[in-house]
Amino acid sequence: MAKKKGNLLYGQSGGPTSVINATAYGVISEALKSDKIGEVYTMSHGIKGALEEEFYTMSKQDEKQIELLKHSPGSAFGTVRYKMADFKEDETDYVRLLYIFQKYNIRYLLFNGGNDSMDTCYKIAQYMSHVGYDIQVIGVPKTIDNDLPHTDHTPGYGSAAKYIANTMQEVAYDMVAYPKGKVTVVEIMGRHAGWLTAAASLASLTGYGADLIYLPEVPFSIEKFKKDVRRVYGEKQQCLVAVSEGLVNEEGILVGSSSGLKDAFGHFQLGGVSTKLSQILNSEMRIKSRTIELGTTQRAASHLHSRSDVEEAITVGKQAVKYALKGEHSIMITINRESSNPYKVSFGKHKLSDIANVERKIPKSMINEDGNGVTKEFIDYALPLINGENPPPFINGMQEFAKFKME
Amino acid sequence: MAKKKGNLLYGQSGGPTSVINATAYGVISEALKSDKIGEVYTMSHGIKGALEEEFYTMSKQDEKQIELLKHSPGSAFGTVRYKMADFKEDETDYVRLLYIFQKYNIRYLLFNGGNDSMDTCYKIAQYMSHVGYDIQVIGVPKTIDNDLPHTDHTPGYGSAAKYIANTMQEVAYDMVAYPKGKVTVVEIMGRHAGWLTAAASLASLTGYGADLIYLPEVPFSIEKFKKDVRRVYGEKQQCLVAVSEGLVNEEGILVGSSSGLKDAFGHFQLGGVSTKLSQILNSEMRIKSRTIELGTTQRAASHLHSRSDVEEAITVGKQAVKYALKGEHSIMITINRESSNPYKVSFGKHKLSDIANVERKIPKSMINEDGNGVTKEFIDYALPLINGENPPPFINGMQEFAKFKME
Repeated sequence: MAKKKGNLLYGQSGGPTSVINATAYGVISEALKSDKIGEVYTMSHGIKGALEEEFYTMSKQDEKQIELLKHSPGSAFGTVRYKMADFKEDETDYVRLLYIFQKYNIRYLLFNGGNDSMDTCYKIAQYMSHVGYDIQVIGVPKTIDNDLPHTDHTPGYGSAAKYIANTMQEVAYDMVAYPKGKVTVVEIMGRHAGWLTAAASLASLTGYGADLIYLPEVPFSIEKFKKDVRRVYGEKQQCLVAVSEGLVNEEGILVGSSSGLKDAFGHFQLGGVSTKLSQILNSEMRIKSRTIELGTTQRAASHLHSRSDVEEAITVGKQAVKYALKGEHSIMITINRESSNPYKVSFGKHKLSDIANVERKIPKSMINEDGNGVTKEFIDYALPLINGENPPPFINGMQEFAKFKME
Repeated sequence: MAKKKGNLLYGQSGGPTSVINATAYGVISEALKSDKIGEVYTMSHGIKGALEEEFYTMSKQDEKQIELLKHSPGSAFGTVRYKMADFKEDETDYVRLLYIFQKYNIRYLLFNGGNDSMDTCYKIAQYMSHVGYDIQVIGVPKTIDNDLPHTDHTPGYGSAAKYIANTMQEVAYDMVAYPKGKVTVVEIMGRHAGWLTAAASLASLTGYGADLIYLPEVPFSIEKFKKDVRRVYGEKQQCLVAVSEGLVNEEGILVGSSSGLKDAFGHFQLGGVSTKLSQILNSEMRIKSRTIELGTTQRAASHLHSRSDVEEAITVGKQAVKYALKGEHSIMITINRESSNPYKVSFGKHKLSDIANVERKIPKSMINEDGNGVTKEFIDYALPLINGENPPPFINGMQEFAKFKME
């Protein structure tokens, strides 16, 4: 047997998705069976754990817990929002990482995240190459926002979209039970890209869905919104509205920024647009309106996974290990759509330098002319992504999530 | 065969639950097989449909649609919020109902609802008895609020509680992924009774649940809330809070009444308490806080039924028919708990006059001393109610809901 080259370190970063741990399962199961990889470590709380030498050792965990990753939301090993400095300006973190990598003989670094994380991943890859440390750095995509470029979609989106579509379907069916209803405004996650909010449209295929959909890609006008609601409410005596938390007006100002607080990446904390719009309907238009703010339930709803999403999430993890073993580095794994009907994908790679900090928004061709809904092109794109179920093992009516021990 | 006595009319009233249609299934399937009952009609939009002679005829529907009632949220036949006058003051509606009942030879009236609906049901029973029209009026309980008296619990509560418990578990697991987190404030339905909000506590059994729970039964103090959050946040660097939308302060004023609008029964429209509390945390305490407002998803989440709840909902419907056939009237069907472990119930009846407009709140013995959580007594009570699953038939990743035709 050839000498093992070294150990693999896997980290989770940024906002969780309900299937990021399925990707962890893919990485861990694939890596543990490889002859070339020694130990598999996972970072506690992402890059923070790497800097502080806090790792979970995978060969020492119960197999059951590793299996449970396929049904656990959140980030089972912990995540963090931490912005690495440019190493040309401040090398501190990078020197520390190099020391840790050498100490643990880390030769494969798999970093699972979204836009900001791919930036971190790329910076580390550049630094390690710069100092000549032999390591394969591979980005593994995840984000419910579906806004990473050069991939057809990202693991995590399908399950979140399925949760939103089913929730909208249920709320719409509940709403039509009344002869005269309310305007329900549902606030959906998505900072700059409206992929998740657009998923509200899928419910309409069943006959019960959103009447109006407002995406961050379309400058939002309160007057236009009031006009749209008045028209639908006039026709149906009720109206179901899906709004993105990231809606901006024509001047580029967030409609719903309520707290004024920023996160570690300097982004404004979102939330509040549904409350604001609902208040306008109640007070200015005297139409009863209520809000639903799904918040983190959208990325955490492990009880309503898309089977297709879970399977792809696992495969993306396995592919990342395979590419690493082939000697690839500074790439992100991608999903390429071969066809929509029947749905078929292949897995590939794209260089990290093209991906870091680039956001992929919904193209104009997927948004309707009136700017308050989507086109058939979006439906054809999104529908296959929510297909199939992955029912969790329930105990006493609740789920069981993975738990790991650190020695 | 004995001559059929007459026809049965079934109506749904008030806010839907995710299993009220399972009760409809119980009523319809039991009534259709009875020799004594002719046709089974269902009201379109509750009492409004009865007054306007808008009925669905059950023998003319597809069997598949009747089966789908077991998986459909909302009120499949429509509901309404409509307050009947006291017939001693205004007889109009009652005279009209009598005419309709006679025209359709309605001899069994099964009315499925919560507190307000049991009031309507009771008034109709009294009037029909007053004018000597021979009809069995039976109340069939439903409400996610679980606030009907003289029954251990109500159909609809278990499924809503399960949805809340699992959502809290998922959100908590998502939250602990961060080394330093936020305060997430989750707003849960329940006007005067905190049964649903208390269900957030069940998640804690899994190790991931709400840190603080505020019920409408306990006068709410902002200062106490801030102190509680400061303590938990200091210990854990994050905090998950469940609040009832119906929280009132020591002066009895709603903490979250935002719109000032009232419904047909004169109740204030709720919503907004989570936003208000979150703003206080953000601005006064400078702790990042976000909200989740579950809204109608709690009563509509047919994708996460409790099996136990669905089965009881069906049985309650069947029992209502059986009691009607035995000649009972002016009663509501009740669920009586025989034991909690193993969980066992029997079904009984209680006279409507004791039930109309009485709200059952959480007893003090189920609320902790600090007024920010529950006791083991509540857990033992609620846990069996969320047990078992009722997975819906999915098509293309979405559900299929019942649809009926009116000729």
